[in-house]
Amino acid sequence: MFKKISIIGCGLIGSSILRVIIKKKITKNIHVYDKSEKVLNFIKRIRLPVKVSNNVKEIVKNSDLIILAIPLSSYDKVLFTIKNNLKANAILTDTGSAKKGINKIIKKYKLKKISWIASHPIAGTEDSGPKAGSSKLFEKRWCIISPSPNSRQSDISKVTKFWKLIGSKVKIMSFEKHDHILSLTSHLPHAIAYSIVRTAVNSNQKLKKDIIQYSAGGLRDFTRIAASDPLMWKDIFIDNSDNILKVLDNYSKNLKEIKNAIKNKDSKKLLEIFSSTKKVRKKIIEAGQDTEKPGFGRK
Amino acid sequence: MFKKISIIGCGLIGSSILRVIIKKKITKNIHVYDKSEKVLNFIKRIRLPVKVSNNVKEIVKNSDLIILAIPLSSYDKVLFTIKNNLKANAILTDTGSAKKGINKIIKKYKLKKISWIASHPIAGTEDSGPKAGSSKLFEKRWCIISPSPNSRQSDISKVTKFWKLIGSKVKIMSFEKHDHILSLTSHLPHAIAYSIVRTAVNSNQKLKKDIIQYSAGGLRDFTRIAASDPLMWKDIFIDNSDNILKVLDNYSKNLKEIKNAIKNKDSKKLLEIFSSTKKVRKKIIEAGQDTEKPGFGRK
Repeated sequence: MFKKISIIGCGLIGSSILRVIIKKKITKNIHVYDKSEKVLNFIKRIRLPVKVSNNVKEIVKNSDLIILAIPLSSYDKVLFTIKNNLKANAILTDTGSAKKGINKIIKKYKLKKISWIASHPIAGTEDSGPKAGSSKLFEKRWCIISPSPNSRQSDISKVTKFWKLIGSKVKIMSFEKHDHILSLTSHLPHAIAYSIVRTAVNSNQKLKKDIIQYSAGGLRDFTRIAASDPLMWKDIFIDNSDNILKVLDNYSKNLKEIKNAIKNKDSKKLLEIFSSTKKVRKKIIEAGQDTEKPGFGRK
Repeated sequence: MFKKISIIGCGLIGSSILRVIIKKKITKNIHVYDKSEKVLNFIKRIRLPVKVSNNVKEIVKNSDLIILAIPLSSYDKVLFTIKNNLKANAILTDTGSAKKGINKIIKKYKLKKISWIASHPIAGTEDSGPKAGSSKLFEKRWCIISPSPNSRQSDISKVTKFWKLIGSKVKIMSFEKHDHILSLTSHLPHAIAYSIVRTAVNSNQKLKKDIIQYSAGGLRDFTRIAASDPLMWKDIFIDNSDNILKVLDNYSKNLKEIKNAIKNKDSKKLLEIFSSTKKVRKKIIEAGQDTEKPGFGRK
């Protein structure tokens, strides 16, 4: 399918893709780049059959598939560097969580001979770096593919097949719809997790130890999300700010509704609100998006 | 330690306590009450060595320890029913998540001959009912004990010893401090989880299916908490409303700070906020309050 594949960025996501490509023998000709010597040394040390380089211009030459697995704020610089080294008709994809910025960059550099098809594998953990990577990371997880308006059907099929080989379920969706849905399912939850953890630990320095100690009552779930890579999330919030600001407004309205019900000791209203959300969990489990074990099955 | 123990309410918490009492042979003389025939029949069916009754007045007679494991809104009615049947010097405890209301009730009924020592085992799952109970629920979890000002030291020691036998780590704390800390570590996270799940699924009926489908990006963690027992949580929000409203105000301020940083595309500020919360997760894991496995170790 792809004779040569290049992965740019070898953190949690990039190194996980790399591991599956090797495991599933998708190609033998894989090149990886990372700007960090430490990351490259780690990949060398674990002796994967892959060419490791700190020269991004070199690795993309003659590549049939180029995968950007870097923070959104690095896209511009990397694309500027590689744009004249890309093979005609090569497929360029990424793994980013927001799609507005990258499309502007693609337009700016007029990468017309390149087949740009965005990808977003909805997988990951609160850990980062190549050490945290795993060939199982994408198994049964969704990958959203957003082709550009003039993408060839054959290229879309290739990218779809690639992600299926990686282990994902694939959904094709416009850039705009992707950014809207993800603002609700991922970006809003992160904004909120960061706020609540900040509220809890900043509220009272004296209570800080107690708050850590008794976090099992709910807070600890939020701290997992609020432990996600700060650099990556800073970029997402800026890239998808239009959608995020809108959903934050809706959220504030919902929160105010609960606040007023508490203020008025309105049992009926509170019961109605809390009952409506219980059903959502059931649907998520039915859709195979989470474990049904209580407490996530944690031990 | 206690010749006769009565458990009032046999849901997730009550039935879990019951299971440990039997397993650890804390006493042979255990009586349980529940207002639901269905719950009582379940306890009978699993053939635990315990006396099951639908007469709460009867079961508390001659009990040395009475444990309330019912929703906060049922406390008043139950205490009114049993108050003249309690043995002098019996120890009365509970398992409730907020302590303001119960103290008012104790005062109102002038239960002076009774030794009232509140308990709050910080354990539980999003499931409810006796079927979800487990003898392992309290293992290594904290239990906060709040004695009344005139509690005898010997009684406090007995209750402490009881919870340690149940498997908990015990912390003694005033009612007021308990309600304040829990408003941050548990009640605020629940208010927020209910709001966000409501925002996500109510925002757009057309997108509802997509939102369920792509919830693995963060939202699914919140849906677990927002699946908690609505009746129980409605009571907690009303009982601890003073503290909760205060922390909700602080939270709104923090959220606004993030919102403004997004609006201004203020990378530096966002990075600062997101970095500060990352450390909290590490401390919670070090304190033994959560698993260090990524994604809670879910499969």
